[in-house]
Amino acid sequence: MSAPSTPSAPAAPSAAPSPVSAASAAGPDAARGSAARTYALDRAHVFHSWSAQAEISPMVVTAAEGSHVVDGEGNRLLDFSSQLVNTNIGHQHPDVVAAIADQAHRLATIAPQYANDQRSEAARLIAERTPGALDRIFFTNGGADANEHAVRMARLTTGRPKVLTRYRSYHGGTDTAINLTGDPRRWANDGAAAGVVHFFGPYLYRSRFHATTEAEECERALEHLEQVVQLEGPQTIAAVLLEAIPGTAGIMVPPPGYLAGVRELCDRYGILLVVDEVMTGFGRTGAWFVSADEGVVPDLLTFAKGVNSGYVPLGGVAVGPRVDEHFAHRPYPGGLTYSGHPLACAAAVATLEVMERDDVNGHARRLGEQVIGPELRALAERHPTVGEVRGRGVFWAVELVTDKGSRTPVAPTGGSSSVMAGAVQQAKALGLLPFTNSNRIHVVPPCTVSEAEAREGLAVLDKVLDRVDELVAETA
Amino acid sequence: MSAPSTPSAPAAPSAAPSPVSAASAAGPDAARGSAARTYALDRAHVFHSWSAQAEISPMVVTAAEGSHVVDGEGNRLLDFSSQLVNTNIGHQHPDVVAAIADQAHRLATIAPQYANDQRSEAARLIAERTPGALDRIFFTNGGADANEHAVRMARLTTGRPKVLTRYRSYHGGTDTAINLTGDPRRWANDGAAAGVVHFFGPYLYRSRFHATTEAEECERALEHLEQVVQLEGPQTIAAVLLEAIPGTAGIMVPPPGYLAGVRELCDRYGILLVVDEVMTGFGRTGAWFVSADEGVVPDLLTFAKGVNSGYVPLGGVAVGPRVDEHFAHRPYPGGLTYSGHPLACAAAVATLEVMERDDVNGHARRLGEQVIGPELRALAERHPTVGEVRGRGVFWAVELVTDKGSRTPVAPTGGSSSVMAGAVQQAKALGLLPFTNSNRIHVVPPCTVSEAEAREGLAVLDKVLDRVDELVAETA
Ligand SMILES: Cc1ncc(COP(=O)(O)O)c(C=O)c1O
Ligand SMILES: Cc1ncc(COP(=O)(O)O)c(C=O)c1O
Repeated sequence: MSAPSTPSAPAAPSAAPSPVSAASAAGPDAARGSAARTYALDRAHVFHSWSAQAEISPMVVTAAEGSHVVDGEGNRLLDFSSQLVNTNIGHQHPDVVAAIADQAHRLATIAPQYANDQRSEAARLIAERTPGALDRIFFTNGGADANEHAVRMARLTTGRPKVLTRYRSYHGGTDTAINLTGDPRRWANDGAAAGVVHFFGPYLYRSRFHATTEAEECERALEHLEQVVQLEGPQTIAAVLLEAIPGTAGIMVPPPGYLAGVRELCDRYGILLVVDEVMTGFGRTGAWFVSADEGVVPDLLTFAKGVNSGYVPLGGVAVGPRVDEHFAHRPYPGGLTYSGHPLACAAAVATLEVMERDDVNGHARRLGEQVIGPELRALAERHPTVGEVRGRGVFWAVELVTDKGSRTPVAPTGGSSSVMAGAVQQAKALGLLPFTNSNRIHVVPPCTVSEAEAREGLAVLDKVLDRVDELVAETA
Repeated sequence: MSAPSTPSAPAAPSAAPSPVSAASAAGPDAARGSAARTYALDRAHVFHSWSAQAEISPMVVTAAEGSHVVDGEGNRLLDFSSQLVNTNIGHQHPDVVAAIADQAHRLATIAPQYANDQRSEAARLIAERTPGALDRIFFTNGGADANEHAVRMARLTTGRPKVLTRYRSYHGGTDTAINLTGDPRRWANDGAAAGVVHFFGPYLYRSRFHATTEAEECERALEHLEQVVQLEGPQTIAAVLLEAIPGTAGIMVPPPGYLAGVRELCDRYGILLVVDEVMTGFGRTGAWFVSADEGVVPDLLTFAKGVNSGYVPLGGVAVGPRVDEHFAHRPYPGGLTYSGHPLACAAAVATLEVMERDDVNGHARRLGEQVIGPELRALAERHPTVGEVRGRGVFWAVELVTDKGSRTPVAPTGGSSSVMAGAVQQAKALGLLPFTNSNRIHVVPPCTVSEAEAREGLAVLDKVLDRVDELVAETA
């Protein structure tokens, strides 16, 4: 789960939850589907990600379609979050749903040591879309285990122990993945995995390098990374691992040349480059992959989410020649029961075919260029609390500040505030399901969102920003 | 994947694989389903678990039903492996398949921060089956991440760093999980996760404690564990984590009182008990959980596999009061995008309803008591290479040795040998898909295997053991 703060603390459903004992006593079918029962059983029996269990009131979701979800009271909400930025083709795409149902009837599962048509086909379709010769796919269940295995591959291939990753990043919830992560969710887990060193990436709006232009930020960020490499000792570094564009941490689109610069630096020191495209991949930015878009070929590329819109859990590592050769005649010491799960792979095959057929990437790119980008920039002009907007495709961040001069965030990194809570409340009241993190609202609808829906959501965002302006003015 | 050796090296399909380029050039639908194409694309694009990529020839599986799978040549094989010991209700159970298809049409996915009917219902059904007050379920995608999160919960709840686990165990493929593991698959990953200490469990056939009876083995194994606890420092130990019955490592059914003794010891030192029931849970031994069967209530119980027979990736941690209270008003610092995935949970709901309705557990227990156990013991009498058979329900190990006196294994721990390769080859030639590890053949058919199928498979096993006897005699 990428959204640690406000999205996980929605308002309680107004339908008063019946006492759990009563709900449990009812027959298993009788009240199923009733939002009250769903809520009561959730509160009794579900342990939620990133949450204090007694302090949450999860919103019930009973249905979803396209760009909308329906809550327990029957309200239809426009999904500007794509859940956790994963339903890239929207909810309940009929072709993908049909493919899942069909594969369930054909062959739901088979162990990883066999060959299976859906697994083969999904691997081919993914390999054909990755940049360069990232031709072999190791399938996992999600993004965290993809990064765990990528790091293992890099360490064993190079024989070096350390991995360099960025501050302001998220790489998953298992021990190594959360230690790779550069946001406050790592803190409670620090030390559970060794050999990770964090560096700063480019982020001109809050430059660590005292830069004033994108070019300067790029150059100085690369200089900084090279210094870290040199001071850590190049021969101790297996990989630099970074999100193509940091997602949950703020959608900081790298300046032109940054990723290529990192690639060049890695090559110079014999370090592998691992690009995490779990959130950026499969259409989010209007391309299959940001790395491909930027002409950069990593040694390993991790993916999940958009590969099948999360309809069935799936992630993986696209493996390039250097790692593939290392494990050609040496067993790779890693695996999992559901590697290359046929049902998950069938969902991926259908998703990629739909995306290709309907040019979903082109649609997302055009929406970003012609609608979302221009509209967000207009909102930034109009609202005193919008510090910066940035993004690409259907992947945008709106950074909220107390005033444009000081750039003071309206909430701390990894935390919330009354202003941010007010923004979320206002959005939901107006029928918009937002994705928020720290002092940011992310505009991350499905890649298939229509222009009309995008405009409708942006109009709601305008009203939400009015509310933010008010709240900030009140607390000033 | 639990089976590191022989099951991952099946014979190449006899249909000569067409060159990859030709396969890739064909239209996406044209040749799909063709075993040759599946094989060629697999070899070109799939990176397999636990394998040297250039040295495997994965068997194509095109279909499966009940206790059988069909390979790329159309051979029907009796599945005595349940894949990776996960398809507890057999392949393609119509009620579960229907539930998956139905849920795909209703609501394939929704993010973890919401409440959803299938997630609530699955949590209730699981919580009702776990022992004691393990009432709250944290859902993951599989067994490895279940163990990762259980360890995190234990460390944060106790404020202690170390976890004690057993030699001869398997806990998953991510860094912390593989370091918890006590088999050779850990070695290449040693050091990637800190704070794990391994101890010896009871295993009378190869007693580390020079014991001659089960009671003595039990007593000495508990003494040993207590010594390790005392020498590591009780106040440094967060948890003892162990498989209820070690699975892939050899199905060593603990002597009566061992698990209860570990529970008592943990209580005495304020250590949490985490029981891994990923392989043992949900019917495998003829019970919902071995811990419940033994009257032991762990603080955390991890599960996966049988919870929905692996039809959709799902795992989780059942959380007891001590951990639940710790995170009541303190955020749990962990999560994942697919926690409580509705499609996976719907498959679990259907699976548990089917198992309850059809008394699958009772069937598995009776098969073990009346058919598999007695038959295996007869085979052990008859064949000079069978050192020991042990198990419960549909969860049995046949340990192969060069002779009953020396008990020398016919293959090293974590490795293979010509004898074991010969056994696998013979089994497949006779229509049986076996699960093997080191010097053992595991008899682990679906819990729904019919008595006739079980007897048929055991008859094949008899012939396989003839072959093993021959091979051992030849090499002596
Ligand atoms: C960039 C990135 N990497 C990895 C992950 C972890 O993926 P998962 O939650 O599927 O483990 C996420 C999830 O949000 C992510 O955004
Ligand atoms: C006892 C046990 N724990 C954990 C795991 C890991 O589960 P997964 O492969 O789903 O990560 C396994 C898998 O075989 C297992 O047998």
